[in-house]
Amino acid sequence: MSISINSPADFHVHLRQGSISELITPHVRKGGFDVAYVMPNLKPPVTTTEQALQYKADLERIDPNVKYLMTLYLSPELTPDEIRKAKQAGIAGVKSYPRGVTTNSDGGIESYETYYPIFEAMQQVDMVLNLHGEVPSDAEAATLMSFPQNIHVLNAEPSFLPHLFKIHNAFPKLRIVLEHATTRAAVEAVKKCGPTVACSITAHHLALIVDDWAGQSWNFCKPVAKFPDDRQALRDVVKEGHPRFFLGSDSAPHPPAAKSTSTPTHACAAGVYTSPILLPLVAHLLESFGALDKLQNFVSGFGRAFYQEPIDQSKGARVIKLRRPSSKKIVDDKYVLGNESLIPFWAGKEIGWEIEEDD
Amino acid sequence: MSISINSPADFHVHLRQGSISELITPHVRKGGFDVAYVMPNLKPPVTTTEQALQYKADLERIDPNVKYLMTLYLSPELTPDEIRKAKQAGIAGVKSYPRGVTTNSDGGIESYETYYPIFEAMQQVDMVLNLHGEVPSDAEAATLMSFPQNIHVLNAEPSFLPHLFKIHNAFPKLRIVLEHATTRAAVEAVKKCGPTVACSITAHHLALIVDDWAGQSWNFCKPVAKFPDDRQALRDVVKEGHPRFFLGSDSAPHPPAAKSTSTPTHACAAGVYTSPILLPLVAHLLESFGALDKLQNFVSGFGRAFYQEPIDQSKGARVIKLRRPSSKKIVDDKYVLGNESLIPFWAGKEIGWEIEEDD
Repeated sequence: MSISINSPADFHVHLRQGSISELITPHVRKGGFDVAYVMPNLKPPVTTTEQALQYKADLERIDPNVKYLMTLYLSPELTPDEIRKAKQAGIAGVKSYPRGVTTNSDGGIESYETYYPIFEAMQQVDMVLNLHGEVPSDAEAATLMSFPQNIHVLNAEPSFLPHLFKIHNAFPKLRIVLEHATTRAAVEAVKKCGPTVACSITAHHLALIVDDWAGQSWNFCKPVAKFPDDRQALRDVVKEGHPRFFLGSDSAPHPPAAKSTSTPTHACAAGVYTSPILLPLVAHLLESFGALDKLQNFVSGFGRAFYQEPIDQSKGARVIKLRRPSSKKIVDDKYVLGNESLIPFWAGKEIGWEIEEDD
Repeated sequence: MSISINSPADFHVHLRQGSISELITPHVRKGGFDVAYVMPNLKPPVTTTEQALQYKADLERIDPNVKYLMTLYLSPELTPDEIRKAKQAGIAGVKSYPRGVTTNSDGGIESYETYYPIFEAMQQVDMVLNLHGEVPSDAEAATLMSFPQNIHVLNAEPSFLPHLFKIHNAFPKLRIVLEHATTRAAVEAVKKCGPTVACSITAHHLALIVDDWAGQSWNFCKPVAKFPDDRQALRDVVKEGHPRFFLGSDSAPHPPAAKSTSTPTHACAAGVYTSPILLPLVAHLLESFGALDKLQNFVSGFGRAFYQEPIDQSKGARVIKLRRPSSKKIVDDKYVLGNESLIPFWAGKEIGWEIEEDD
């Protein structure tokens, strides 16, 4: 048995910079993907068109065969003029991080109203707004929704959803992606919105629940994986084939030492690395809940339609063939380049699909 | 400023066996405590009076100055006759673990009805039943309560509470302690029960919430720390001075390597080690939420009353003096004996109280 998938596109990936970028950027294609929608949370963050184009050139030097869709980091430095300039230069979107919630997000936003002139310009030129949909934890704060608890890692996403509705209502033509949804509440919220609002879902959130990251830092990421009922909602919306829900891997590498070891005063890094096995992993997971027939649309069709990035055969788009491994296949436990090494999600576990290496 | 506390008693502690026991058993007194209510989850578990008395002798050899209250592990091997024998021998209680929920609990219980003859005998002879109040995680199972989600580490305790009510209703005179409560639901459930049902609270659950163990295995224990609102309920019931809520540290040492490092296929050990700093830590925490005036009853009076273990001045009961450190005091980051070493909770952090060493 084999499956052919037409030119997969990962609509949320971290490709970092420097030597780690040399290791991971080729993993986009290794994992079966032709398009990478690249996150801007570098040090310093990518806040100008110039930086984004330089970053794109860096990535193209490493692997010229991927189409990189670049983003800017929403911050006070951004202006409507810069948005228009970015659009002209082919920048695809602007990413918003809540302050301090995830890796390199210290410059993130605290409230959205101040960015309305930016959103207005983005709506005019048709750039996409990518939302990291969490509010920062605050044990003392009242939430925006009717939760009985204050704000913590498990209600940080539902507590964000009023922001999504508010921005969508204020800018109904602005294309918005709620990134890496993890809750039933988020799935329902996106469904309620109009056709300009979509939602990315990672591979690992289709696999994990809160129990999986309790004491297990390799499964720890932001947003954290939630409850079984939430995972079910993610699986259901994929199985339903809802066209506004598509893959964004949020593949986010960290050095093994930063992932594996916490000290009493230092926690492990948040992030799960899926790039090098992404398409086989997504196939494996979708098959586990009976949604393998939705693979083409989930990893390519729906995201491409929302982002207006049709498959361009003239630019080397691939048809990826997935096949059953001829013998039990275990995911590699390490990828190495020079002094850098990375351990992927699903390392040491069996996987039910592999890419036929004939391209 | 100083505080004198009359003979503190820790009504839930793990003293292990072998070389690690040599290191930690003296920490009971070092932490300011005269009484240790000792958990039976050894390898193999303590299931007979003979084993419990042997274990007690081992502990007394290490430190004869602590009063050890011994427990048996609830398992199919236990008989009503053994209960009567245990009572005669001074065994204080029987501990119930749900199967597979925490350290060395593979022999734990799956349903309680089969133990009703044991509970009947315990009620007759007035032995205490100690409940680890969690049901095992099960992403597919319906819960016993009205939770919208299935069973996971965050609703495992509320989902257990129907068992508590059921056992209490069937055996209203049986003294029961719901151990290491972590949720508002548990606090409210114990309050609703009659005077034979009490509740132990750990030091670390007065400090931690879910965010604190996300990616931080040193704060990972079972039951996991819950939401800010749950922590508030624990703090409130201590501050209220409710006589059926008292300290049981659940101090549970694990080798630093087992606490600090996870691999993709192996999670970190669950457990927080507080013994050597217990009384100063509890004072520090109670002071942080304005309950320092409840310290005596929380660490000694209430637990002793429920367990019928009054202070026995003839047996070397101490008055522990806590004082303000003369300079900034940081909790030691390591305790070593031979090849064994342990890193305590609160390591490297400032603590506002210390024991005056004059006993």
